[in-house]
Amino acid sequence: MAPEPARRRRYDPERRDRIIDACLQVIGEVGVAGASTRRIAAAADVPLGSITYHFADVDALLREAFERFARRVSDSFEEYMARATTVEEARQAVVDMITADPLVDPRELVLTHELYTLAAREPAYRELTHAWMARSRHAFERHFDPATARVLDALVEGLTIHAALDTEPRDPRDLARAVEVVTSTASPTRD
Amino acid sequence: MAPEPARRRRYDPERRDRIIDACLQVIGEVGVAGASTRRIAAAADVPLGSITYHFADVDALLREAFERFARRVSDSFEEYMARATTVEEARQAVVDMITADPLVDPRELVLTHELYTLAAREPAYRELTHAWMARSRHAFERHFDPATARVLDALVEGLTIHAALDTEPRDPRDLARAVEVVTSTASPTRD
Repeated sequence: MAPEPARRRRYDPERRDRIIDACLQVIGEVGVAGASTRRIAAAADVPLGSITYHFADVDALLREAFERFARRVSDSFEEYMARATTVEEARQAVVDMITADPLVDPRELVLTHELYTLAAREPAYRELTHAWMARSRHAFERHFDPATARVLDALVEGLTIHAALDTEPRDPRDLARAVEVVTSTASPTRD
Repeated sequence: MAPEPARRRRYDPERRDRIIDACLQVIGEVGVAGASTRRIAAAADVPLGSITYHFADVDALLREAFERFARRVSDSFEEYMARATTVEEARQAVVDMITADPLVDPRELVLTHELYTLAAREPAYRELTHAWMARSRHAFERHFDPATARVLDALVEGLTIHAALDTEPRDPRDLARAVEVVTSTASPTRD
């Protein structure tokens, strides 16, 4: 029995997914302030009512969109670290991560700082950033002790931000040296 | 000759100053999106027309407000570094800076990430963040070579953000160890 068209559209699981992706795309382009449901619906190519059908309110949609964003970035960290089979390769993977396109894409940057702005104000978003940082550190702990992983995570954060917000290009060798210095005292048995 | 009251208010140099400070206060509380001229005027205790008198448009006010913010933070870095007389004291000063209240104040954080969000999108703001980073590195170069100052600046950025956005308290000894590791290879004569 074929469902009637309106009903089929309503229960389309990909539509909910597409709305979340469209939300991230719109925030990346115009920021949280410009991310109206109207604009998100247009980007997702769904009727406006579809957003209110799938999400309790715009805050619920924002929250889920930022969860997806954080998950995507930490999954990428995890992949980089999982591919490395030695500490040397892990160090190189960290440098590659920092210089990779997605992290210096202006839209990814806007998403990151919009999320941090929300987290600075709202505890609910701080849980999300906390979970994100825990996943990143966990990825680094494949190769480095927990104390080193924590410092490395902070260093990667700072280097990525500074590479993106500076007007001068950076020398990849400087990044490699920074990563090496921070991980030089690493030991799996460290306290 | 006493100026007539309306004229005196208009040329009050403190009023322009107060508007800039009020702008920062309002952004810290409600973000750039919520920082309407009406709200800024109320916070500065000036009539709305005073803002249009002193600033070409709201973007010019925002730009000047963020310039003041960046200058204030880098002046504080400079003071911390100027007070230290040895490398050991400089390292401790870096730890003190990261754990200092102003940097983990939610309003300061909102200002930082709002500025970074603007810089991710607009080259004019990227000049501002570039100048800010250059001043911070210059402050660190009182005690460390340029390559170390650059890494230290990135580390301080990352540690500050992570301390603020995490839900777990950090051990100041971990910060001290991180700063020590990054500055351990520092040498004034390094290439």
